[in-house]
Amino acid sequence: MIPSTAALLIIGNEILSGRTEDANAPWLARRLGARGIRLHEIRMVRDEEGAIIGAVNELRRKYAHVFTTGGIGPTHDDITAECMAKAFGLPLGIDPEARERLASYYKTKGEDITDARLRMARIPGGAMLIDNPVSGAPGFTVENVHVMAGVPRIMQAMFESMADTLPGGPPLLSRTVTAALRESQVAEGLEAIQKEFPDIEIGSYPQMKDGIPEVSLVLTGADAGRLELAEKRVTALVKILN
Amino acid sequence: MIPSTAALLIIGNEILSGRTEDANAPWLARRLGARGIRLHEIRMVRDEEGAIIGAVNELRRKYAHVFTTGGIGPTHDDITAECMAKAFGLPLGIDPEARERLASYYKTKGEDITDARLRMARIPGGAMLIDNPVSGAPGFTVENVHVMAGVPRIMQAMFESMADTLPGGPPLLSRTVTAALRESQVAEGLEAIQKEFPDIEIGSYPQMKDGIPEVSLVLTGADAGRLELAEKRVTALVKILN
Repeated sequence: MIPSTAALLIIGNEILSGRTEDANAPWLARRLGARGIRLHEIRMVRDEEGAIIGAVNELRRKYAHVFTTGGIGPTHDDITAECMAKAFGLPLGIDPEARERLASYYKTKGEDITDARLRMARIPGGAMLIDNPVSGAPGFTVENVHVMAGVPRIMQAMFESMADTLPGGPPLLSRTVTAALRESQVAEGLEAIQKEFPDIEIGSYPQMKDGIPEVSLVLTGADAGRLELAEKRVTALVKILN
Repeated sequence: MIPSTAALLIIGNEILSGRTEDANAPWLARRLGARGIRLHEIRMVRDEEGAIIGAVNELRRKYAHVFTTGGIGPTHDDITAECMAKAFGLPLGIDPEARERLASYYKTKGEDITDARLRMARIPGGAMLIDNPVSGAPGFTVENVHVMAGVPRIMQAMFESMADTLPGGPPLLSRTVTAALRESQVAEGLEAIQKEFPDIEIGSYPQMKDGIPEVSLVLTGADAGRLELAEKRVTALVKILN
């Protein structure tokens, strides 16, 4: 397994039906990049046991970190905790610490813990809790899999609460050169620069600006010196073509 | 393989780095749903041959339809066409019809076809072209895999040009009941309704509205009568609880 790699598993019918647009992936991608962890793959699956277990078992063997979002609420379609227990062959029971955190949260609202709410304290045996400063119900970590909520505000708070514990690498740096050119005009020159800089990832993204074709050339790498060198070469290329 | 199922494979480093937020998945999910095709899985992978070939070979055996977006432009990081040829064991060559379409497109701009642009005419042998009314360069279909552009406006035009040829099913219908309740308050009653209506998918989505917890209960199914019945039950449930 390559260190500093990650995958994201997004769980929920609402994403696959197009009802809800996922906002977690771009946020997590950027936060991981800043910590030197590169997101290699994202999967989105429905609230179906087989799909969730299959995906998590494949991803956790392939990548250093796996993050999941969604399916840890109190309703019948929230099946992530039991799927994780099955994927790892662990028992699923009410975790006393999770129960305590839920009870304190609802106490501040003047409400009691109910059977439905207790569902959110079901944690696979031996998992580490992930703090939820927003709404009490914790996420959890089993080995390299971090199970988080789907609501962006809660997911972000959960991630930040454990971000410092994730082994990463040097942060990925990025530079963008934009030019009023068609992608096909820069293609040949860009490929030559990419061959010269195999340690820098060079991407080319076309768009239209006020009806005029434009291209963004994005350079990514961990070495600031090499990145600057490559950026100079790309800037010189678009100057010749313009 | 279950008929009327689909997967979407989104190809591109820009998505995994968080630089570009994908807009194709929600659009395609809704358009497929309207045609009675249910999106079961979405994967996003980097511009890497092994990742693309692995994903497409897995998905095309699992789902009736596979759609891909991204990686069919003219630059070095556009490797989708060659990956599809390898995934299917097909030769990759310049397709005369695709070349002709590109040439006509650039003619309207007063420009010539160049080597870089010709890359976009490389099509796996035997593939059917997908029309691109926006910018000339076609997509293509091999068996049950439909290869489309990543730029949303082009992707949408490509999809619409072939949508009528896709075998689907009765359109999926959806109803939403929203109530000023916590998810955990409806959980028990909702589960009972779900058990009574196994043919209706019931999802529960919490949100905050002006600081007050609110829940959207989404019912999805193909039978309008059953859907109406289930909606009545859910509406009655939230009335009792409110």
